[in-house]
Amino acid sequence: MPTFIDIHHGMPGITQKGLAEAHTVDLALQAEEGVSFERAWADPVSGNVFCLATGPNLEAVQRVHTRAGHPADEIYEVPLEV
Amino acid sequence: MPTFIDIHHGMPGITQKGLAEAHTVDLALQAEEGVSFERAWADPVSGNVFCLATGPNLEAVQRVHTRAGHPADEIYEVPLEV
Repeated sequence: MPTFIDIHHGMPGITQKGLAEAHTVDLALQAEEGVSFERAWADPVSGNVFCLATGPNLEAVQRVHTRAGHPADEIYEVPLEV
Repeated sequence: MPTFIDIHHGMPGITQKGLAEAHTVDLALQAEEGVSFERAWADPVSGNVFCLATGPNLEAVQRVHTRAGHPADEIYEVPLEV
């Protein structure tokens, strides 16, 4: 299953609670798209949120985020990993 | 210890071997800066490489990459994680 990293911009001031709530919505929807969100990290200063996921393709990852109400601004398939 | 995500641009065509070699140089230098690179992912299509690290501060993370010959284009401290 391919691995993806996506980035959400424009979330300055995001809190641990806000990140957890957004992630929970992704988790509730991901099975319908065959996606698995593994981890997410947020920087409240720059407003960037990074998600690590596996799924069948980039579009499926984005569909989960879009249905959750927070489409990603960038998504990259990352076939190489160390 | 704070967590950081950094991004290197402009590495289209990067291979698993190239990623592993670059990561090995980081690992060889990181102790001197108190940094620990945990994982790295690369997208040979966009040429983006993403690194996950912990360390005392952003500057220390960048010093490792710079001394390794591949300074990051973006580095973010990510204090929030799920």
